[in-house]
Amino acid sequence: MLHGIDPALNADLLYVLRAMGHGDDLVICDANFPADSIARQTTYGRLIRMDNIGSPQAIRAVLSLMPLDSFVDTPAERMEVVGNPDELPAIQQEAQAEIDAVARRDAGRDTWPMGSVGASRSMSARRRPMPSSPRASAASTAASS
Amino acid sequence: MLHGIDPALNADLLYVLRAMGHGDDLVICDANFPADSIARQTTYGRLIRMDNIGSPQAIRAVLSLMPLDSFVDTPAERMEVVGNPDELPAIQQEAQAEIDAVARRDAGRDTWPMGSVGASRSMSARRRPMPSSPRASAASTAASS
Repeated sequence: MLHGIDPALNADLLYVLRAMGHGDDLVICDANFPADSIARQTTYGRLIRMDNIGSPQAIRAVLSLMPLDSFVDTPAERMEVVGNPDELPAIQQEAQAEIDAVARRDAGRDTWPMGSVGASRSMSARRRPMPSSPRASAASTAASS
Repeated sequence: MLHGIDPALNADLLYVLRAMGHGDDLVICDANFPADSIARQTTYGRLIRMDNIGSPQAIRAVLSLMPLDSFVDTPAERMEVVGNPDELPAIQQEAQAEIDAVARRDAGRDTWPMGSVGASRSMSARRRPMPSSPRASAASTAASS
């Protein structure tokens, strides 16, 4: 274990976080997302597993190190519920709470509302996402540029 | 750049630090050490460059995250000067100062004197060192189990 590093951040994930820069995307998704197949089309090319934790805990661990881009409207985005794009499921509300904590820490604002993307866009291969998949939660969240 | 992470710790080095455990060795050496050839015989198998900084700065960055094993007599070791094994060159005194700072932080003691190893042992292939080479200093230091 390393001093001050969330144990949820494994070696592969630390590598990717340190290698990322402005405009690079990181996808945090659940076990129902086709993470492995999409990961193979990304810059990094491999899925990074985060076993036995939920998305909010994964988001908290990632954001403990990774700054969100402050010069875009929605540095974090969520995948819409199919057929109900305005619904914010409980798991995404938990994700939003983690992002809001970072808004207060880094940006002097109370909230940083996630943008939303339709499932079809989420599932399609984007240019640079580097998926990271926690196993245990029920919705997916994309932190992106 | 990541929150709270020394910028000297590049992506490869973060990967290795997070992957290491008790008893694993990390060699921090200067540009005159045969780092590339020795690195190829290690567990990790590749040299990790830390360009444009000296060994003490590299040691400080590594120890900002990595705990030293407290259950061995000399968790850090230095390479002896050929023909003068008791001499502690200035660069190794700087290295010792960085290690002593960690002794105070982690072990409640004022100093954690480095052990020393002869050059022949330093140069030979050991089982598990993962060399990391800063470019700009004049002596080498081995942090090991």
